Amino acid sequence: MMEQVSANRSHGGVQGVYTHQSSATGTPMIFSVFVPDHAPGAKLPVVWYLSGLTCSHANVTEKGEFRAACAELGLIFVAPDTSPRGEGVADDAEGAYDFGLAAGFYVDATEAPFASHYKMWSYVTEELPALIAAEFPADMARQAITGHSMGGHGALTIGLTYPDRYRSVSAFAPIVAPSQVPWGQKALPGYLGQDQAAWRKHDAVALIEDGARVSELLVDQGDADAFLAEQLQPRLLADACRKAGIDLTLRLQPGYDHSYYFVSTFMADHLHWHAERLKA
Amino acid sequence: MMEQVSANRSHGGVQGVYTHQSSATGTPMIFSVFVPDHAPGAKLPVVWYLSGLTCSHANVTEKGEFRAACAELGLIFVAPDTSPRGEGVADDAEGAYDFGLAAGFYVDATEAPFASHYKMWSYVTEELPALIAAEFPADMARQAITGHSMGGHGALTIGLTYPDRYRSVSAFAPIVAPSQVPWGQKALPGYLGQDQAAWRKHDAVALIEDGARVSELLVDQGDADAFLAEQLQPRLLADACRKAGIDLTLRLQPGYDHSYYFVSTFMADHLHWHAERLKA
Repeated sequence: MMEQVSANRSHGGVQGVYTHQSSATGTPMIFSVFVPDHAPGAKLPVVWYLSGLTCSHANVTEKGEFRAACAELGLIFVAPDTSPRGEGVADDAEGAYDFGLAAGFYVDATEAPFASHYKMWSYVTEELPALIAAEFPADMARQAITGHSMGGHGALTIGLTYPDRYRSVSAFAPIVAPSQVPWGQKALPGYLGQDQAAWRKHDAVALIEDGARVSELLVDQGDADAFLAEQLQPRLLADACRKAGIDLTLRLQPGYDHSYYFVSTFMADHLHWHAERLKA
Repeated sequence: MMEQVSANRSHGGVQGVYTHQSSATGTPMIFSVFVPDHAPGAKLPVVWYLSGLTCSHANVTEKGEFRAACAELGLIFVAPDTSPRGEGVADDAEGAYDFGLAAGFYVDATEAPFASHYKMWSYVTEELPALIAAEFPADMARQAITGHSMGGHGALTIGLTYPDRYRSVSAFAPIVAPSQVPWGQKALPGYLGQDQAAWRKHDAVALIEDGARVSELLVDQGDADAFLAEQLQPRLLADACRKAGIDLTLRLQPGYDHSYYFVSTFMADHLHWHAERLKA
């Protein structure tokens, strides 16, 4: 049911890439998993990393600089794809980068033609965790979630929805309020329809306003990020957290942009932060 | 004379990519430089990294995981391209990956049609160092050199030729004796002609046999590297070093292959090793 695409020894562990036929999306799906060396029979905590627009599992796997810290801390690192792909999978009508392929926004689409395959919420929260639990030495009682940009949106919304499942939630330059910014105002109606009530479960700020709670969040954001002012607006998250009593650590990183040069810089910090909570 | 292609803040420094018109190759050349933050007026030691077959500056820049260590240690990291490129630059007759474009072998070609542009030895040892000295806060009295595969060959041959210029020399899975293995037995006659005397200056083992000396070398080599037995044969280097009294640290790394999953694993080790010698 799962096939290994590649396996490379790296940083005292194995970086694998795998494919399987997803029942959630009805397509083959690809993902990567790093497993540090461990004692026979040991189960390791799992960090989920959700990627951003235009990305697949490969971007963070090649450029994320997570393996040294994961090996040091004994963390499994799972990186899913960002949308279903392949023949018969609908894309943006104009092939835009911010909707359709590689832009699934971690929702279960209800609108045609996307409802047939774009079931990324179910895929990332149900199907893939079951596969990881079955196939890897993963301690599913100790999971954390993070992500970048659209994947930061995914991490925040999933973490806020399942606070008992993910012990810690962080994000790199996340979309925090998609209902209020152009990327989300295109994607949410496209996948979920015009009724904004359905959007609120996929909007971190709206979720918090509606009562979702986690004890704390860690967010890094570059202040030279070209998407900061229009698409990201982390102050909306800061306001919501303050009102809700959520302990948000929002670090504006001077000079950093939206790229993996930014993500990789703060990756080890996030992994140490998650490890403290996963091992507490 | 030098144009910035991109600059991204990363790991407390700036990762830049630059292009310039090379007089050595007669083509535009691209290279990357990472400069850690430093005190005004300070000059930092320089580590040269030469890349392998099929690579450009981009592979190590994206996947090398060198920036955290360079920032910690205060090292500038320079990554040149592996050949001239562009209109009018000759390639392998069949477009093979191991000769011609992205396979310059760090020699000054003498054979037509490669002699017109394939002057990578002069480019890497003369023209680019002068440009780095002029444009970056580089302490050219403190240089080190390393590289991967064909770039390990470049690092070893250049380091052995200029032992007073490079304080330390290391390599990842280098080609150590190109005259004795298929990659080199194709490239060296292609660039330098049939007279094997001309090959010896571009063969680390031959250079050592002919009297070239450095005090020590560090080489990492994965034992699951598909090119180990036929193309790399590090034992030839070990034998030559033993006879010559060169202190070679050759580490066979169990399970590691030839990819950047291997290089990135041991990159920080090499940078710490170089830093100790650059700062001694």
